[in-house]
Amino acid sequence: MGLVTLLTDFGRSDSYVGVMKGVICGISPQATVVDLTHDIRPQDVAGGRFQIGMAVPYFPVGTVHVAVVDPGVGTGRRSIALATDRAWFVGPDNGLLVLDEKIRSAVILDRPQFWRSANASATFHGRDVFAPVAAHLLNGVPLESLGTAIDPAKLVRLIIIPDSIQAIDHFGNGITNILGITLGLQVRVGNRVLRSVQTYGEAAWGEPIALVGSHGFVEIAVNGGDARRLLGLQVGDRVELCQEVCQAEFYEGRD
Amino acid sequence: MGLVTLLTDFGRSDSYVGVMKGVICGISPQATVVDLTHDIRPQDVAGGRFQIGMAVPYFPVGTVHVAVVDPGVGTGRRSIALATDRAWFVGPDNGLLVLDEKIRSAVILDRPQFWRSANASATFHGRDVFAPVAAHLLNGVPLESLGTAIDPAKLVRLIIIPDSIQAIDHFGNGITNILGITLGLQVRVGNRVLRSVQTYGEAAWGEPIALVGSHGFVEIAVNGGDARRLLGLQVGDRVELCQEVCQAEFYEGRD
Amino acid sequence: MGLVTLLTDFGRSDSYVGVMKGVICGISPQATVVDLTHDIRPQDVAGGRFQIGMAVPYFPVGTVHVAVVDPGVGTGRRSIALATDRAWFVGPDNGLLVLDEKIRSAVILDRPQFWRSANASATFHGRDVFAPVAAHLLNGVPLESLGTAIDPAKLVRLIIIPDSIQAIDHFGNGITNILGITLGLQVRVGNRVLRSVQTYGEAAWGEPIALVGSHGFVEIAVNGGDARRLLGLQVGDRVELCQEVCQAEFYEGRD
Repeated sequence: MGLVTLLTDFGRSDSYVGVMKGVICGISPQATVVDLTHDIRPQDVAGGRFQIGMAVPYFPVGTVHVAVVDPGVGTGRRSIALATDRAWFVGPDNGLLVLDEKIRSAVILDRPQFWRSANASATFHGRDVFAPVAAHLLNGVPLESLGTAIDPAKLVRLIIIPDSIQAIDHFGNGITNILGITLGLQVRVGNRVLRSVQTYGEAAWGEPIALVGSHGFVEIAVNGGDARRLLGLQVGDRVELCQEVCQAEFYEGRD
Repeated sequence: MGLVTLLTDFGRSDSYVGVMKGVICGISPQATVVDLTHDIRPQDVAGGRFQIGMAVPYFPVGTVHVAVVDPGVGTGRRSIALATDRAWFVGPDNGLLVLDEKIRSAVILDRPQFWRSANASATFHGRDVFAPVAAHLLNGVPLESLGTAIDPAKLVRLIIIPDSIQAIDHFGNGITNILGITLGLQVRVGNRVLRSVQTYGEAAWGEPIALVGSHGFVEIAVNGGDARRLLGLQVGDRVELCQEVCQAEFYEGRD
Repeated sequence: MGLVTLLTDFGRSDSYVGVMKGVICGISPQATVVDLTHDIRPQDVAGGRFQIGMAVPYFPVGTVHVAVVDPGVGTGRRSIALATDRAWFVGPDNGLLVLDEKIRSAVILDRPQFWRSANASATFHGRDVFAPVAAHLLNGVPLESLGTAIDPAKLVRLIIIPDSIQAIDHFGNGITNILGITLGLQVRVGNRVLRSVQTYGEAAWGEPIALVGSHGFVEIAVNGGDARRLLGLQVGDRVELCQEVCQAEFYEGRD
């Protein structure tokens, strides 16, 4: 068995994603392909990185993750593959694939013999470079055969705004990049201060709250509602954990 | 081979569904996972139940169906697995999984050794409880090992409004819970009376009609159009089969 | 291994697509099913044909492609299966499956022993006829056993408007049916004349351009933007390649 995941900003109304699966299955017929999502906003590299980061820990060791959010396709940006202790990653060198996990090794994908054809399309590396390379990894080709080694420290990295909302999910919850929360703390986002709870059950219906989500990050939510709409949340909004001072404002804010 | 289906209200813009597949494949590498739909309206338990009910008869005997439409997650609501003559079902005990088929046996999922970890997230039982339990069922773990037996009569059941529209599909057709129709009957919905036909071919373009859909239920449709928009259909609308009286109104209504 | 692709206009909010997969897996348990797309606009046969045509060359030889965009279901329209040198195709005889590739043989699907049941639903041939027939092909049943042979020249074909936009993709790019372009040519669409480039990197941000897309066709795009919205593109719009004359207008248009 070999497991490969796909994440793109291609949407699902075209056959682009299906085509990548066709290419993978042609090279590695036993592959199992799992979609993470294809609804990343066009060219939202940070949003794509967040979704991959959420998913990777739940896949078996040895999974290959292919991601294509690639505003630089056809320019000089490098194509890369990299290995961590648990997984392989294949895609553009634009920060999409560099998560918090330690990178053991990385290569620049510069060997056309592992591509779909020596002339990769200038606009669809997902089909012509990343899908075939992922399939070769599944088939047991070692990472170092696929390209020229590169020092992982030289890969492009995204600048992450600390203590901020890094994503908003389908339910409208704002997911911060703050790992965990001490009970009793409050959370300030914009000019609102929210109390923190352990489960939705502790909150009143319609109450804005902070809690630790299933991914381990502090999450801004409205019990039974859509926090994005109700609180006007946006990706990048600063979030602050606080104690007494906040608490004062908190009670004030409610009067 | 083992087949597992997934139905949720998670949407597809996050990696939540992919994560459930990663967990399943980690425990049961030969699993084939099929999506029913992930576009159930958030927390619409009845809509989810309808879609599962439509799908179950067409899957091979022994399929495991996992469904997560779960407004009560993190509260005291029970997690369950149950068996019918043709399939297994895994999810919350909120009526989502109790279809018309006879339930042979049911258990409360209270044995953390079959979960992803002993500390299930308070907000994502799909990943931490239901996906692993489904994978163990695929691997041959008997239902009765997975939890404490419960009398199927004690499971939560939805109250179904008889003779009503139970769902509206992608094409805008209103699907009732009335099984079959006698030729020549009319169908009243709101203040309209529609004639019944056997195929769309018998209807004029744009004509509102009733016919028996592919699922066996009477369906309210507009030939070539969207009945939801054109007739203002809503889930829960009462629907009535009738003969002469309706027929009178029918002709009146057309003048 | 057997690979089958599905393309429909069913959307993903109902379980219809999942049901087709259940039927396929019931007959051919080793099947791998890949979605091309299910977001073809309802009954847009030409749009469906375009997406299949884009995908077919990237799947392994022997793949079975099932497509259901089927305004004529339940009328007299024929169900067909056909073979080319690389693939099988199963669906309605309405032009959806007749691509540019040479058809080696074709049959009318008139043998109910290969259907889900002898009484196919009048509205869901995807489930009752096409899915089972595809699964039997995967299982090695020869095409000629599945129905009565028909001369490929007698299949329904779509009338294609030459030199026009045949599809608009998720990114808003207009994909023409013109294969390739000579460097230096301009492209006229509506009353605009665009210069042609080899990669997006050659264009200014926001500049409307023409280039050869990953599928080999000339594509109308706006670098970093949505050409559909910005240029008002529509399927069927005539597109013209031109030299000096256009060039004059081109410079004029920019002043």
